[in-house]
Amino acid sequence: MLGIDHVGIAVPDLDAGQAPYAALGVRSVEDEEVPDQGVRVRLLDTGAGTIELLAPLAADTPVGRFLASRGPGLHHLAFRVADVRHALEAAVSSGLRPIDVVPRPGRAGSRVAFLHPRSVGGVLIELVEPASGAVRP
Amino acid sequence: MLGIDHVGIAVPDLDAGQAPYAALGVRSVEDEEVPDQGVRVRLLDTGAGTIELLAPLAADTPVGRFLASRGPGLHHLAFRVADVRHALEAAVSSGLRPIDVVPRPGRAGSRVAFLHPRSVGGVLIELVEPASGAVRP
Repeated sequence: MLGIDHVGIAVPDLDAGQAPYAALGVRSVEDEEVPDQGVRVRLLDTGAGTIELLAPLAADTPVGRFLASRGPGLHHLAFRVADVRHALEAAVSSGLRPIDVVPRPGRAGSRVAFLHPRSVGGVLIELVEPASGAVRP
Repeated sequence: MLGIDHVGIAVPDLDAGQAPYAALGVRSVEDEEVPDQGVRVRLLDTGAGTIELLAPLAADTPVGRFLASRGPGLHHLAFRVADVRHALEAAVSSGLRPIDVVPRPGRAGSRVAFLHPRSVGGVLIELVEPASGAVRP
């Protein structure tokens, strides 16, 4: 466990979603589309910690369905790990329930796996292994 | 804006709520009661970033009502600021809607103010000015 990688926030639209954070002095770093997760993301650098705004590419995606059922807001909490396969196995052996049985591609060459919120007190947890050598804000 | 201070997570019970994070390798730092907010909190140190578990002191508290209506899960996102009064004024003058018109006492001698989630894309934002000289995990 290498700490919090980012906080994921679901928004219907990246520009409108970013506006309140810009008002609070948080700057935008970059956008990236993650087709495997059905989202376009915008990274915001708070100075200590990263926010990942997530806008759905279509209504019939996990984030699209989240927005339809719960509205915009806090979506997931991502922990950075050195080895996502090992971290996923350790989590499952501790009784946490995986959404991904094997890690899958994430943003910026990372490999990620999600844990089911029902096994983590209602919080959707993402485990993120950054691309080797990746420099992150 | 000095970055993310902590991520607040609502749980019915601190010990049960902490268990999945302990399984992920996140250690507990300390507990504190914040009567003004009707909660008992437990700080968890992830190695990079702090989680604040919040258990309500009674059903008729903001966190008690949150648990009753939405269930346990991600509750708020806290930004650390140098001067909470100034940060609150700047946020309001940018069009964000305050819950607290003036800052109030927070955990560990901090002063805090909350912004209304309707003005921040569904996210309850806390502005935190740590106690002067405070050392935080």
